[in-house]
Amino acid sequence: MTDPHKSSHHTDTATSERPGRFATRHIGPRPEEQAKMLATVGYGSLEELTSAAVPGSIRSAAPLRLSPARSEDEVLAELRALARRNRVLTSMIGLGYYGTVTPPVIRRNVLENPAWYTAYTPYQPEISQGRLEALLNFQTMVADLTGLPIANASLLDEGTAAAEAMALARRVSKASGAFLVDADCFPQTIAVVQTRAEPLGIPVVVADLSGGLPEGDFFGVLVQYPGSSGALRDWRPVVEQAHERGALVAVAADLLALTLLRPPGELGADIAVGTTQRFGVPLGFGGPHAGYMAVRTGLERQLPGRLVGVSIDVDGNPAYRLALQTREQHIRREKATSNICTAQVLLAVVASMYAVYHGPEGLRAIAQRVHQHAVMLANALRALGFATVHDTFFDTVLVRMPGGADAVLERARQAGINLRRVDADTVGVSCDETTTRQEIDRVVRAFQPGLDEYPELSEDAAPALPAAQVRTSAYLTHPVFHRYHSETAMLRYLRRLSDRDLALDRTMIPLGSCTMKLNAAAEMEPITWPEFADIHPFAPADQVEGYLELIRQLESALAEITGYDAVSVQPNAGSQGELAGLLAVRAYHRANGQEQRDVCLIPSSAHGTNAASAVMAGMRVVVVRCRENGDVDVDDLRAKIEQHQDRLAVLMVTYPSTHGVFEEAITEICALVHAAGGQVYVDGANLNALVGLAKLAELGADVSHLNLHKTFCIPHGGGGPGVGPIGVRAHLAPYLPNHPLQPLAGPATGVGPVSAAPWGSAGILPISWAYLRLMGPEGLRAATQVAVLNANYVAKRLAPHYPVLYTGPNGLVAHECIIDLRPITKETGVTVEDVAKRLIDYGFHAPTMSFPVAGTLMIEPTESEDLAELDRFCDAMIAIKGEIDRIAAGELDRVDNPLKQAPHTAAMLVGDWNHPYSREEAVFPAGVADKYWPPVRRIQGAYGDRNLMCACPPMDAYHG
Amino acid sequence: MTDPHKSSHHTDTATSERPGRFATRHIGPRPEEQAKMLATVGYGSLEELTSAAVPGSIRSAAPLRLSPARSEDEVLAELRALARRNRVLTSMIGLGYYGTVTPPVIRRNVLENPAWYTAYTPYQPEISQGRLEALLNFQTMVADLTGLPIANASLLDEGTAAAEAMALARRVSKASGAFLVDADCFPQTIAVVQTRAEPLGIPVVVADLSGGLPEGDFFGVLVQYPGSSGALRDWRPVVEQAHERGALVAVAADLLALTLLRPPGELGADIAVGTTQRFGVPLGFGGPHAGYMAVRTGLERQLPGRLVGVSIDVDGNPAYRLALQTREQHIRREKATSNICTAQVLLAVVASMYAVYHGPEGLRAIAQRVHQHAVMLANALRALGFATVHDTFFDTVLVRMPGGADAVLERARQAGINLRRVDADTVGVSCDETTTRQEIDRVVRAFQPGLDEYPELSEDAAPALPAAQVRTSAYLTHPVFHRYHSETAMLRYLRRLSDRDLALDRTMIPLGSCTMKLNAAAEMEPITWPEFADIHPFAPADQVEGYLELIRQLESALAEITGYDAVSVQPNAGSQGELAGLLAVRAYHRANGQEQRDVCLIPSSAHGTNAASAVMAGMRVVVVRCRENGDVDVDDLRAKIEQHQDRLAVLMVTYPSTHGVFEEAITEICALVHAAGGQVYVDGANLNALVGLAKLAELGADVSHLNLHKTFCIPHGGGGPGVGPIGVRAHLAPYLPNHPLQPLAGPATGVGPVSAAPWGSAGILPISWAYLRLMGPEGLRAATQVAVLNANYVAKRLAPHYPVLYTGPNGLVAHECIIDLRPITKETGVTVEDVAKRLIDYGFHAPTMSFPVAGTLMIEPTESEDLAELDRFCDAMIAIKGEIDRIAAGELDRVDNPLKQAPHTAAMLVGDWNHPYSREEAVFPAGVADKYWPPVRRIQGAYGDRNLMCACPPMDAYHG
Repeated sequence: MTDPHKSSHHTDTATSERPGRFATRHIGPRPEEQAKMLATVGYGSLEELTSAAVPGSIRSAAPLRLSPARSEDEVLAELRALARRNRVLTSMIGLGYYGTVTPPVIRRNVLENPAWYTAYTPYQPEISQGRLEALLNFQTMVADLTGLPIANASLLDEGTAAAEAMALARRVSKASGAFLVDADCFPQTIAVVQTRAEPLGIPVVVADLSGGLPEGDFFGVLVQYPGSSGALRDWRPVVEQAHERGALVAVAADLLALTLLRPPGELGADIAVGTTQRFGVPLGFGGPHAGYMAVRTGLERQLPGRLVGVSIDVDGNPAYRLALQTREQHIRREKATSNICTAQVLLAVVASMYAVYHGPEGLRAIAQRVHQHAVMLANALRALGFATVHDTFFDTVLVRMPGGADAVLERARQAGINLRRVDADTVGVSCDETTTRQEIDRVVRAFQPGLDEYPELSEDAAPALPAAQVRTSAYLTHPVFHRYHSETAMLRYLRRLSDRDLALDRTMIPLGSCTMKLNAAAEMEPITWPEFADIHPFAPADQVEGYLELIRQLESALAEITGYDAVSVQPNAGSQGELAGLLAVRAYHRANGQEQRDVCLIPSSAHGTNAASAVMAGMRVVVVRCRENGDVDVDDLRAKIEQHQDRLAVLMVTYPSTHGVFEEAITEICALVHAAGGQVYVDGANLNALVGLAKLAELGADVSHLNLHKTFCIPHGGGGPGVGPIGVRAHLAPYLPNHPLQPLAGPATGVGPVSAAPWGSAGILPISWAYLRLMGPEGLRAATQVAVLNANYVAKRLAPHYPVLYTGPNGLVAHECIIDLRPITKETGVTVEDVAKRLIDYGFHAPTMSFPVAGTLMIEPTESEDLAELDRFCDAMIAIKGEIDRIAAGELDRVDNPLKQAPHTAAMLVGDWNHPYSREEAVFPAGVADKYWPPVRRIQGAYGDRNLMCACPPMDAYHG
Repeated sequence: MTDPHKSSHHTDTATSERPGRFATRHIGPRPEEQAKMLATVGYGSLEELTSAAVPGSIRSAAPLRLSPARSEDEVLAELRALARRNRVLTSMIGLGYYGTVTPPVIRRNVLENPAWYTAYTPYQPEISQGRLEALLNFQTMVADLTGLPIANASLLDEGTAAAEAMALARRVSKASGAFLVDADCFPQTIAVVQTRAEPLGIPVVVADLSGGLPEGDFFGVLVQYPGSSGALRDWRPVVEQAHERGALVAVAADLLALTLLRPPGELGADIAVGTTQRFGVPLGFGGPHAGYMAVRTGLERQLPGRLVGVSIDVDGNPAYRLALQTREQHIRREKATSNICTAQVLLAVVASMYAVYHGPEGLRAIAQRVHQHAVMLANALRALGFATVHDTFFDTVLVRMPGGADAVLERARQAGINLRRVDADTVGVSCDETTTRQEIDRVVRAFQPGLDEYPELSEDAAPALPAAQVRTSAYLTHPVFHRYHSETAMLRYLRRLSDRDLALDRTMIPLGSCTMKLNAAAEMEPITWPEFADIHPFAPADQVEGYLELIRQLESALAEITGYDAVSVQPNAGSQGELAGLLAVRAYHRANGQEQRDVCLIPSSAHGTNAASAVMAGMRVVVVRCRENGDVDVDDLRAKIEQHQDRLAVLMVTYPSTHGVFEEAITEICALVHAAGGQVYVDGANLNALVGLAKLAELGADVSHLNLHKTFCIPHGGGGPGVGPIGVRAHLAPYLPNHPLQPLAGPATGVGPVSAAPWGSAGILPISWAYLRLMGPEGLRAATQVAVLNANYVAKRLAPHYPVLYTGPNGLVAHECIIDLRPITKETGVTVEDVAKRLIDYGFHAPTMSFPVAGTLMIEPTESEDLAELDRFCDAMIAIKGEIDRIAAGELDRVDNPLKQAPHTAAMLVGDWNHPYSREEAVFPAGVADKYWPPVRRIQGAYGDRNLMCACPPMDAYHG
């Protein structure tokens, strides 16, 4: 993708270009609109504006060497060709990834519906009630199935969930010592735990716990249930022993199995973790899938990740919102205990809807059928004289085949089935929802080719679950799991929920730093094609040539864009990218005998996640001051470098800065750090201001993570998935992530896996690949330029009404701007929150509130918004300023005014109207047409945190 | 599909059935709900109810012989296998069907979005403002491009549009004589015109008009522009000559060409017809596509089909609605001049959005690029010494290849391209939006294989349009064609429009006779797969084996379900099916020397289309009375048979009756007609009450049309597409439709084509195929039983509040019920319209109003609605009755009450409230949650008809 010469057979259309190139579709403002906006900003052309806004010192000289833009149908044709190079075999590999049937009604109306996938993280709960309900269903599902009272709203994957469990155990346990991991856990889970434990100085002991705990001190224990080998151990004795020693026990459990088996909560576990992939979420060559974590009572405030809870709005009506947000890493910064930021909301929604659609009986029936097939297989093989490793199991049967495992695997592949090679003598076969009798038959024949007399595949065989472990408790008893079992009912439920929310399909979402740009349909279509969706992450490499080529091209294109020498797409969130990048720095210093280098300098304006990630990477955070104008205080930086000279590991800085400014000192800053022996980590969160104009590596950076869900068009999905690849210069390349089960996924010298799957959330990489291919180098550069134009246009229009806090060269901002409400707050009592909620009445999602500066709003319009939408937003903001002025002038009450009372619901309009402003002012400040109605009034966060309720309450409690 | 034995390799899952069978998803009520409802209706089981409701005399003895039910993923896998048997070649065949790029944003958000495709025909304009706006855009697009002032909201296809033009010309012209058709019209258009002309006694003269009109009397003339041969004739002399003779001129014109060429209006044409397929609508092996018709001033009230106009609501705000509905066939019945009923709304929306997205400059650029490629090809071939037939052309080049056409076609196919075989010596090549230089190159090499010295493909060659015919007038100047050129803007426009409408994805649509059942996602997914979407209707048979197999299986399954011997899926609407069925009857009588048989008996309760179709088939309609209870008056039938004995051609009757009743006399009725030498046509509109329980042929019928868009799950698309296959007994099979370009499409003895494409709207047949495969015989039967249960449950719940007009055996209705509002109207002045509009406030689409009996509402819930939704509807109806009672009691004003003022908008809530009932009663009669807000108040139809405005008015005129 990076070398145009390699694709010369495609240059045909370059000469007779199709009308309506994609870049003109992706970029919002038409050329004539751009001219108008440039005039407002005071420049004659995009090039002039670019020259004025972006310091020449950071500009890249050469244009991007990427293949030229292609039309949508051409790119889709190319993707089809790549897709055809993936071979979709039936996967019976298991290891945490299983075939599943995504109900078409859910695929079409969630995974393929922009109302769901273009939504942002539900930080503004009033416009997020739909997906918050879906997430509460998810939490209830996980809590019920695990038998633990409280679950979060998803984690990144099973491996990182297990690592989070380790961290939680260490925080809570009074015991010290090691983290004990049963050897029958999934190998990738063990590896992720090890990667995460090492920088934290946690010893990880892997041992066979089937006979009980070994000697030693342990603060926590992790076991798999059912085991990686399929074994169904009764973990109660282990739990008891662990508790006696003061250790917490985490059970990595398969939710489908838990419909039949006693759940972790009933075994006495403190924590349950796992994945919800097999609840209708496509395999996608490894992800994205929603991991989960549930905990026992008393640990709820220790849960990492997001937690949805029920609170009330100002009228006392029940309303959902994120609970206990004060635990989050962006608030706790270097005191954070987890750097998790992105969740997997879209996939959690899919999994929860799968449970809603099937209900408890349906899930149980699916589980029974899966088990029945596994039993059928085991019995047939035993009848033929093969030995199975375990007598009891749920879905996975390990079969002895001394010296013959490879031959069995090969024969199975010939029959269209991938099995698991446990070792040269042992084959693993995992059944799943999609398994058919025919496939069982083919597996049996792979073990015994030329079979004539065929053992009967009995469907009435006795189950192979240990009697003592059969589940007797009820689950999913809430009405929501019983109401939507017809497709019509499900379709309407999905529509109803999404209608409650505001996503990009209805309004701009001007969130600073989040780059809520277009997620084009052409980019999204391929991810639900079977050739991308139905591939197991551990499928043999010769079956995934299309994926490998796509990943190679994507990594290579990202390297070209950033100037780095190597890229890894494995990190499945920005936070994971940060960790991976810092681990590379750490490993680099160690390799150079500089183990003592553990100081991470971070400017005070940084994303909170930076500090949290540094802690996860075993570093000490030292804050560097910022100056009045928002720039890094270079003098303070010098002082801090001086102070920590020998221990300086890395500086983490965002560029353009989190203040939305192109700091001119960046190259100097990098040089200072390098001179002191440190590395420079540039956070790529704001890369949308740089693509095609400047390269991170050329600024002097050594390592960065990018956010494919920001700059490269992966949709936010309502709060995930994200993808956070890292780019590094050559000296750090040996320390990129790798994977124990897939040598192609990273260097042998790498730091281990940071995600459970070799290439993380590979299933959504076609989105970014398509974006790059559709835009071409000129399109990408133009997008950056228009992103800068749009931000400056907004800044220019708003400046007379709200002070713009920081600017760079020539009084220009980069791709976002911060407006300062502190003087207004001081004078009128109107806060950023009031403005944010009032914007809902105008039909907008709010900008970022109080980041990076309390009392401000940060606005990033992105290049995808056209002039009409930018003006609609500016007009709303200016009208709101007019309302604020009326408060200041005493024309509106300081409490009972449209801002403090915002948002206003339709329900408020009936009955008596007791406000000193009119109904019309309340709800139609922007006119009547196509009004968005928030389903609730302003939500009280504190009430919900005091009265924590994070699973579905009885329906009567809050449904009107 | 009909023989379970043939699919024994699929019986695997029958034994270990997957949980959540599709039938349980399609059928709304859960088993426990069914039990509750049965109790309400007074029966112990579905079988008991069936026995009581459906007369034993009509019940079929044997179960349906169809393959057993399959799961969604199995059916999708089967469809993928069929799809793979279609080979997608580049089509350069032309003839009215062209490659086109459906913009992915439109594919995903219209074609794949239930908010658009599950909507009903916009008869209730207050809840249809979104698609009415889209259709008005369509009309404006067609009017602008054709240069004629008024266009309708789509017709079925180009061939039928041409036939409608003929009929229009005959109505309007004072001249008599023949209909003159230029020989350079598309062959399928000529054939459809001939099929339609014959029963009407219209002579059709096909002649080469390039030299002017031949001798003779003509009332109308049809020419193609550009011609089928690619020729660009200046038709002005022909138009002048025709007008001198009193004939009207219809020009079948290519809209894309019209962006560059003087439009029909400027040529003096009276009528323009054509297709909008190449405006982003997939080929789909022939359809569905939206045909169009535009006319000159003075003919607007003669336009067939639907016409959207701008009217005002009661507040005087502009609002869209269908104009001049009194022209429609369901009102005019036997006085109708067209039987068109269904339009192609979904496809018209796609085509209109294509124009909105590209705008005039974009369309012109596309057209220029198409033309450029055609010129490039012609020049290259000429340079090699080949002769082209015409010097000027738009997209189609005819090349002389004496004796070598077949060899060229074969070489082109080898290179992945289908060309057109004009004759043994001539090859046609049509360029389109998707054509690339590479393809031009491959075509050239197909003419001259082994080419080394390759003529340069110049892109700067002079255009080959006749200077005098180059367009100079502007088009698409309305702002709507300039505002939504970025994908983000288009996405939001589509969302905004669909949000204004109520479709099945938000509420039941209890329309009598329209069978608004689930359109499942699994059924819908395949239609946008390239292997189904991107196939030309005249592609060689060996490239479409998947389609042919699917059609064969579908026709065969429909034959099994109806008991007929042969089925044709060609008719692309119910009205076309009626015509085809009656033409078969007509041909049968003629073949038996019974030409005089031209009387069509129709009960007074029939769908109006029946009578209109009879007229189109050259028959005289004689009405048979109905009795008090709604049944056919058998005595009157006997009398009418007696009266018309020798001239009796056919009886057209609906079963169950349009009164929603299983008439017991049906078999007797059929016998009476047969005894008199007549044929029996049973309208299959109500087939949803029969599938699996009774067969039309076994009732005694000879011929029926079915509505795949009713019983067999093709979505209504907001008013089309429809598919209206016909089934016939063996004696009528020789008279099924056929097609001049595709001998496989029907018997050589057939009546000619009734649709332009060989298999009509083949592209959506996978929907019905999938439905049958998913349901299996038991599922289909259960669906029918639950449809009957649901209707009887509603009837039972409503009966205490509204009289149920007709019932059959045991006081039961069939699958729908009619409630009588006439006593209420008499007492309180509340009309069916008031109730219909009030239902909008409750969040419902209204039932069918005043059909088949004025002053009544007909309700068909279908099997897909669950108990909760049925109860929500019944509760709303009962609450409305309570409101009516308050009017009767004088508690509510007779004019200013919630019914007469309905629907209520959000805008009404602000400002003063001047109604004697409360705001809350007005807008929240069914509660606050998830309220649907109509965008306008009640619309005044008459105003709009008096002030006819059927193209986009200036935006300022009505946008707030």
